[in-house]
Amino acid sequence: MLLVKKFGGTSVGNTDKIKNVAAKIAKEYKAGNDCIVVLSAMDQSTDELLTLAHEINMDPPTREIDALLSTGEQVSVALMCMALDALSVPSVSLNAFQVSMHSTGNHTNARLKKIDTERIRHELDGRRVVVVTGFQGVDSYNDVTTIGRGGSDTTAVALAAALHADACEIYTDVDGVYTADPRIVPNAKKLNEITYDEMLELASIGAQVLHNRSVDLAKKYGVTLVVRDSHKDVEGTFVKEVCKMESMLVSGVAADKNTCCLTLCGVPDMPGYEYRIFDLLSSNSIPVDAILHTAAVNDTIDISICVSRDCAPRAEALLKDNAANLKIKEVSVDNHVAKISIVGAGIQSNPGVATKMFEALFNSNINIKMTYTSEIRITVLIDEIDMEKAVRAIHEKLLGE
Amino acid sequence: MLLVKKFGGTSVGNTDKIKNVAAKIAKEYKAGNDCIVVLSAMDQSTDELLTLAHEINMDPPTREIDALLSTGEQVSVALMCMALDALSVPSVSLNAFQVSMHSTGNHTNARLKKIDTERIRHELDGRRVVVVTGFQGVDSYNDVTTIGRGGSDTTAVALAAALHADACEIYTDVDGVYTADPRIVPNAKKLNEITYDEMLELASIGAQVLHNRSVDLAKKYGVTLVVRDSHKDVEGTFVKEVCKMESMLVSGVAADKNTCCLTLCGVPDMPGYEYRIFDLLSSNSIPVDAILHTAAVNDTIDISICVSRDCAPRAEALLKDNAANLKIKEVSVDNHVAKISIVGAGIQSNPGVATKMFEALFNSNINIKMTYTSEIRITVLIDEIDMEKAVRAIHEKLLGE
Repeated sequence: MLLVKKFGGTSVGNTDKIKNVAAKIAKEYKAGNDCIVVLSAMDQSTDELLTLAHEINMDPPTREIDALLSTGEQVSVALMCMALDALSVPSVSLNAFQVSMHSTGNHTNARLKKIDTERIRHELDGRRVVVVTGFQGVDSYNDVTTIGRGGSDTTAVALAAALHADACEIYTDVDGVYTADPRIVPNAKKLNEITYDEMLELASIGAQVLHNRSVDLAKKYGVTLVVRDSHKDVEGTFVKEVCKMESMLVSGVAADKNTCCLTLCGVPDMPGYEYRIFDLLSSNSIPVDAILHTAAVNDTIDISICVSRDCAPRAEALLKDNAANLKIKEVSVDNHVAKISIVGAGIQSNPGVATKMFEALFNSNINIKMTYTSEIRITVLIDEIDMEKAVRAIHEKLLGE
Repeated sequence: MLLVKKFGGTSVGNTDKIKNVAAKIAKEYKAGNDCIVVLSAMDQSTDELLTLAHEINMDPPTREIDALLSTGEQVSVALMCMALDALSVPSVSLNAFQVSMHSTGNHTNARLKKIDTERIRHELDGRRVVVVTGFQGVDSYNDVTTIGRGGSDTTAVALAAALHADACEIYTDVDGVYTADPRIVPNAKKLNEITYDEMLELASIGAQVLHNRSVDLAKKYGVTLVVRDSHKDVEGTFVKEVCKMESMLVSGVAADKNTCCLTLCGVPDMPGYEYRIFDLLSSNSIPVDAILHTAAVNDTIDISICVSRDCAPRAEALLKDNAANLKIKEVSVDNHVAKISIVGAGIQSNPGVATKMFEALFNSNINIKMTYTSEIRITVLIDEIDMEKAVRAIHEKLLGE
């Protein structure tokens, strides 16, 4: 089997942890598997480098930020190969130049375009573990780039796709994807498998196990993802196209407090106003998470949108400053809300699921402020204070047995 | 003018020092000159990286040592470009991959083979300061190498040669090359210029301003070297092919305590024995600095050799273990010696120089244990205890006026 294994910054945060990861890899190698290991920079190292940078220049050129930060992963991969050598496992470290890992040129937020596989294949053929720097690429000018948030996960998935690996294992602090946050729902169950689409919905609503970008890429290329615990040797959660879950309508309940609801009242019920409102927000780089508008009453409509809390003050100011121009009568803000979502491939074909969710909330006397759905997700907006109670009630109703 | 400027690890040891160097470069750039800057890793960073490596593996693979250590210069160059940006000087950092800086593949001790100039020329044409990582290369397998001792000086000279720079300035802790060590001879004078050959002789006998390897390369390609002070803005010492020094027979007096004299007594005066003795030493990687043997007495000769003090115990043990085989009657060791050398292009054509040197030693009642010469150098071996007195006496006699 050819396996891609990704370990994040906390998993390689000091030399003892690096030795532990090396032992894990050695075991896999000695079982006869081919391994590509993708590493992040050692925990702290990125922050230390940025501190140096900001002592010199508060707004450094992004090209040089990338040149600076990319050294972090290069340190991790070299040290990992030394640890593997100490365990008599032959290995070779490769950075983005050596692979080569072609990316676009937008520094600090590049996208991977193409991965050359020749060097990696050559090393694998020589029965060496290949240890690759995550998070970085090289653009068409031969300049180092970094690929932004979720970077190393994305590197791992891209490598698995390019080399047709049997699986891409993402090692993290938890041992898999759960039906709910175990800190809120103590009897939450670990899922053995989940579809890409379900994982995407769970990721975007705050499960924070895998970055959406890497799940998206895995879906596109059919890469089997596995979320595994970097400390314990237990089975993780498989993320793949088709799962045997006929019996399971709902795969998880997720909650997210990082949201704020803005309601724009009295917008004219005429073409063009919605376009102008959302153009204003997007041209100011404010991502909008949910959009709802009611049917027209007296030729005006109300539009509710959800944005993340850090963007909310900017969104509010923008909309109020442009209210006259956009013909918005009033902008009201509700900061104390939370999103609760249920996700599951079975939701689409089972209308009873929504009913059960609403019933659970009703039984707990929790008011629903807003509802919106996708084919495999139902999300409600409720008072922030009711968040944990709501998650427990819904989990008990739909996943409790 | 196109200038290559090299700054060592102490010159870029912290962010304030990096800003100081940036200010120096900015001044040169704003005066209209094109600049290529070569940097070492920040002081301490190499040691810190090696400490991490040795926590993991006491004998790490050299390929991975190079991959690890090469990140040090990458950090320096990125930070320097950030500092130049803060001074509104456009710049670009380039590592060994980006240049490309082709080297042989012997890790930790590679030799530069060829430097591509296209990328650097392109950046210079765009009026950007080019900041290049010293000390590293890339081998024919696209693996990072480091080029061993004196590495960054050598990188700087190689770049100056490849790009036909007007000068290669080596910034260091002293403001130039002196006629003697100013700590020993307070009235030692700074030399305005010195030939490559003189510098080579001075470097090898302990002046320690420039590494021999970089002087050798500068001589080969006719690169004008300048030794300058990284803290003060004063003229340095030019190292070049021809100097206007008709009036100056001797350019310097140097002393070196890192030597040990071994004398092999009673070796047969027959072909083959010397060969076998030096083959034994060289095959055990013991460099021999000086070899003298006396004329034969009773069909045997005495051979004296000088080796560095750290090699002396090994050399002694080897020779004693093989004494019977090599027909050496006795091995005697003198550890308390020092080498004193005078260097100057005028020595060859002025036999009186040697006489003056011996006269100075005689007047100070210093015994000479051994004498050996090159075309531009006279070296004597004396008691270690007389070293400083000898340097002062010779300097006074030959360079004192």
